[in-house]
Amino acid sequence: MTDRVPLLIASNRGPIAFAEDDRGELVPHRGSGGLVTALTGALSAVGGTWIAAALTDGDRAVLERSADGVTDIPEERGGYRVRYLDIAPETFANYYNGVSNGMLWFVHHYLWDTVRSPAFGGATETLWQDYVAVNRRFAEALAQEGRRRRRTPRYLVQDYHLSLVPRFLRELQPDAPIAHFSHTPFAGSTYLRVLPDRIRIALLRGMLGADILGFHSEAWAQNFLVSCRYVAGARVDLARSRVVIDGREVLVRVYPISVDAEAMRAKAASPEIRVRRERLERWRGDAKLLLRVDRFELTKNVRRGFQAYEEFLRTSPSWRGRVKFLAFLAPSREAVPEYRAYAKECLEEAERVNRAFGRKNWTPIETRVKDDFEAALAAYGLYDVLMVNPIFDGMNLVAMEGPLVNRRHGVLILSRNAGAHSRLGRYALGINPFDIGEMADAIATAIHMPEDERARRARGLSRLVLANPPARWINRQLEDLDRVAERRAAG
Amino acid sequence: MTDRVPLLIASNRGPIAFAEDDRGELVPHRGSGGLVTALTGALSAVGGTWIAAALTDGDRAVLERSADGVTDIPEERGGYRVRYLDIAPETFANYYNGVSNGMLWFVHHYLWDTVRSPAFGGATETLWQDYVAVNRRFAEALAQEGRRRRRTPRYLVQDYHLSLVPRFLRELQPDAPIAHFSHTPFAGSTYLRVLPDRIRIALLRGMLGADILGFHSEAWAQNFLVSCRYVAGARVDLARSRVVIDGREVLVRVYPISVDAEAMRAKAASPEIRVRRERLERWRGDAKLLLRVDRFELTKNVRRGFQAYEEFLRTSPSWRGRVKFLAFLAPSREAVPEYRAYAKECLEEAERVNRAFGRKNWTPIETRVKDDFEAALAAYGLYDVLMVNPIFDGMNLVAMEGPLVNRRHGVLILSRNAGAHSRLGRYALGINPFDIGEMADAIATAIHMPEDERARRARGLSRLVLANPPARWINRQLEDLDRVAERRAAG
Repeated sequence: MTDRVPLLIASNRGPIAFAEDDRGELVPHRGSGGLVTALTGALSAVGGTWIAAALTDGDRAVLERSADGVTDIPEERGGYRVRYLDIAPETFANYYNGVSNGMLWFVHHYLWDTVRSPAFGGATETLWQDYVAVNRRFAEALAQEGRRRRRTPRYLVQDYHLSLVPRFLRELQPDAPIAHFSHTPFAGSTYLRVLPDRIRIALLRGMLGADILGFHSEAWAQNFLVSCRYVAGARVDLARSRVVIDGREVLVRVYPISVDAEAMRAKAASPEIRVRRERLERWRGDAKLLLRVDRFELTKNVRRGFQAYEEFLRTSPSWRGRVKFLAFLAPSREAVPEYRAYAKECLEEAERVNRAFGRKNWTPIETRVKDDFEAALAAYGLYDVLMVNPIFDGMNLVAMEGPLVNRRHGVLILSRNAGAHSRLGRYALGINPFDIGEMADAIATAIHMPEDERARRARGLSRLVLANPPARWINRQLEDLDRVAERRAAG
Repeated sequence: MTDRVPLLIASNRGPIAFAEDDRGELVPHRGSGGLVTALTGALSAVGGTWIAAALTDGDRAVLERSADGVTDIPEERGGYRVRYLDIAPETFANYYNGVSNGMLWFVHHYLWDTVRSPAFGGATETLWQDYVAVNRRFAEALAQEGRRRRRTPRYLVQDYHLSLVPRFLRELQPDAPIAHFSHTPFAGSTYLRVLPDRIRIALLRGMLGADILGFHSEAWAQNFLVSCRYVAGARVDLARSRVVIDGREVLVRVYPISVDAEAMRAKAASPEIRVRRERLERWRGDAKLLLRVDRFELTKNVRRGFQAYEEFLRTSPSWRGRVKFLAFLAPSREAVPEYRAYAKECLEEAERVNRAFGRKNWTPIETRVKDDFEAALAAYGLYDVLMVNPIFDGMNLVAMEGPLVNRRHGVLILSRNAGAHSRLGRYALGINPFDIGEMADAIATAIHMPEDERARRARGLSRLVLANPPARWINRQLEDLDRVAERRAAG
């Protein structure tokens, strides 16, 4: 019945990046990952619009060529519309770097050195007002698109950049079925108090404007619920995972996302990846390959990963020279001083380990700081051990991509603080990312694991990933949202 | 009925410190504070023994003079017994500095710079084993004392140093009525995962050996309960604030402690304090007095307090020269490098503010780094504004001591992250300790507050403190414990 109810999606970054080709034509490039696959798949099925900030020069060129920033994506690429919002650069910087990545990312991942930072002051209010303004722009654009439709659309709002959109949209469209999804962890109720109080309450109230709030794991959903106990007028029902506020019911649900297995495997099997895989295979030689693939991000725990590997080498001298640690690190947020400092520390740590243990024909750690997904995909095929050890992580898709593509029954070492652990934990070697000893032990366990056990775990991992295709992530949300809409229509 | 049921108390530090006088006699000096008052009061009433580690040379001298480390406190000082445990210095250092203050204090107050520290490794296990050993020693001593009694005693175990004692004691005395009290905050369930997993689980299981777990505020009790959801075999009932484990019920309760008002007011009225107060009054002159009294502790947020005062001076030029910030900072844990570094940073910050704003006859901030309770007590009488801004704090007694003794209707600025805020918040100016702007505003608000409003709040604060004498803290625990014992006896 609701199959043709249109979708309106909002996220900071759009599903398509436009670039001008040699002739000045705007050519769309699709983003990758399960999120875009799932959401564009759903959009294609029922029609709708995806609203995003204009980020690239290509996006801005679309804005210049159409009065309202709307562009139609051709049928063969999905057949939906994208609408770009034109946001002044300074406003965008405050919303994106200042609040989204400088405050909300930090709080949800527990990244502050609390004794010293943060120290909120007058500048915080300026940043926050721009976050509010951008969130309001998104809500207005969604409402405007909604009013153009014959049937009430369903609204899907993505992530921590747009925490206030549900409430603003609710004010404009009181009966709209609205879902918001958090792709990050959600801070516990005590740590969330690091944020200025008015901001903490505004965030919670903003999200509570939705009918459904989605998270990747039970732990994050629970943290959100407990935090709501401190919102005046909110009644939290932990057992049934819902909040009643302003006479409305807000459902707090867990929808674990996954990766687009088919696309990823097809790509991994392509000739260009094969060539790169073969080259990497020659480099590896007879050594065991320990791999990590990450953005160079404060949450990813690169440095302690190197320390754990060092501890493994220290306590397992027979493995020196017979294992290589390959670390793909895609540069991330290099404009932020904390990120630059952290990247430097990590690379110095690797250098130190290499000096301490390296030999003429053996470099213990090889770091490749470059955004090179093809190289990572090639390496996925070859690892014996994949290290995924974030200090905290909403989900973590590397933990799914690797096992899908790996051909050697590679062992997954996985942080218990990643959302992915609640899905994949029983086939992974779970570790505490602050515990160097446990991580070093896990490397040893992985390297010594008998083949039958490796095979059993590897099969388990890919089975779990395949059993949860991205379409399921979105369909479960839409079904729940439809039920909300039906109940509301029934009055 | 249970009035004469003896008490057995365990805490790291005893209620009495012994020192040798000129003739080599051991003279007891009573500790101060509501905790010791409450517990020794209860001990005096029913008889019993307080078990503590021998810390000072005087404590150790007691050990040398009596085979079992027991000394009788004379009737006029309470008429109970103290038993000192002889713990090898290295074991004690690992238990006390390594685990209690280096790990548990950090986790419960959110003190780590998570991107870089902690990094647990092989040394952690050594530290932990000594923590386990000392906790076992305490449990064995309690059980031994218990077996000597005709009637089953009630056991009161204090604080994060002794988290495992309830479980060990339960193993030795399965039917013992045991209460454990946490004087710190309790970390949220996500942040608690920074601890190595076996340690996290051991701590929770250790505490769950008790019948009653006491906390200073609802927030800490709730954090504990949610953390227990991840303990295998534990059933958590959040609504009724209890946990069922091993077929036993564990009640999680809030017992806010207070200060010994009578003793404190008597002392403040003594001639020696009066002399000091008059001296301080001359120093203050016509200026408004902003006061803080703290241990020099990472949690106390001294540096941001100075930054907030600077912001106040920056935005309120008319107050320059007319206000003095007096900071009493008792040295704390100076053997720990983090503490030394932090103390240095704070004093440099004060220096910086003094250089930026100071004039010939006016120093904006006066820091006094010394353990001098008498001076603080004198200053309590005189402040116009008392700043209590910890980043997180189990309770915070300065927020109670000040209003009890103050004579100028001084205004209390109080962190919302201190347990005391849930008691006193409505008469204080609540602040977020990470928000320099809000703290600066609070200083301005406090200084400009009309006299009638100041008087109303000051009266409210002392009324609340007086309404909750330390005896109430202990009596409520004992009543609850008696109910547990009666239910158990009834089978």
